[in-house]
Amino acid sequence: MGYVQHLTKTFKRSKLALMNKANNNFMEAAMLEAENAFERGEVPVGCVIVDSESGKIIARTSNRTEELDDPTAHAEMLAIRNASKNAGSARLPKCDMYVTLEPCPMCATAISFARIRRVYFGAYDPKSGGVDHGPRIFEQSSCHHKPEVYGGISETACGEMLKTFFRQKR
Amino acid sequence: MGYVQHLTKTFKRSKLALMNKANNNFMEAAMLEAENAFERGEVPVGCVIVDSESGKIIARTSNRTEELDDPTAHAEMLAIRNASKNAGSARLPKCDMYVTLEPCPMCATAISFARIRRVYFGAYDPKSGGVDHGPRIFEQSSCHHKPEVYGGISETACGEMLKTFFRQKR
Repeated sequence: MGYVQHLTKTFKRSKLALMNKANNNFMEAAMLEAENAFERGEVPVGCVIVDSESGKIIARTSNRTEELDDPTAHAEMLAIRNASKNAGSARLPKCDMYVTLEPCPMCATAISFARIRRVYFGAYDPKSGGVDHGPRIFEQSSCHHKPEVYGGISETACGEMLKTFFRQKR
Repeated sequence: MGYVQHLTKTFKRSKLALMNKANNNFMEAAMLEAENAFERGEVPVGCVIVDSESGKIIARTSNRTEELDDPTAHAEMLAIRNASKNAGSARLPKCDMYVTLEPCPMCATAISFARIRRVYFGAYDPKSGGVDHGPRIFEQSSCHHKPEVYGGISETACGEMLKTFFRQKR
């Protein structure tokens, strides 16, 4: 391998490593939010929305359905509402979402409406998920915006928190 | 036909007529909300939620996605949030929804989460609907609560308002 090729490869690797590190940090921020929900007795799901241009978190939320008596108050819905309010726009095409659980069909549809660029999610949800399970919202021909989706990020840690929560509830 | 049978039949007929009249009134209330949205430059969709026991409207809303910069602010979502807040519960099993347009997949999933008893909707939405079109949310095996659904109530009037709105936009 020539020196330039080597450098390019190394650069690509470091870029990937940096990207992965950033992704991990953002998923860790979402997991912190999930922990907050756990402590409040809510199903522990956390979410952050990141502006891909500034690399900054513009919304960090967790599930508040019990606290607010609101069946729509999933972490992703609250994050989209906060982020779009802050951005002054109902569309967030430069934003990425990190969420600890596969979004349900309600949240997946809202993600599509908000034109979110990428969705990174933690644990898969075979029972109530709407991305890789159930109605697979983004695969519907009537879905007008399909984000890039990366599932299974920090899957074990995200899933473990949910399992512990439901074990305690029983 | 015996006299008692005749009375029973007449009673059933009047009950049905009364029910239809009430339904029409509630759909008219939803249409008034849609008109409000139209005047504010929002896609004209209106919604009311009725407590089936008291027969009273407990939430009346219309689409506010533009005003609030919120892609989740569909009439149905706002109605569910208002009604569940007023009821002090995230579940509304004794409530019926009247909405001028077939709910999208986001709203249909929220309706299921809220355990709404019946959904009466106006115009069908082949492009973005989620009840009789697209992912047909209530027919998914992962849908844990399926309301009774009655589509096409005051369909022409509800659809006409939407058509006029989009014609003006073009």
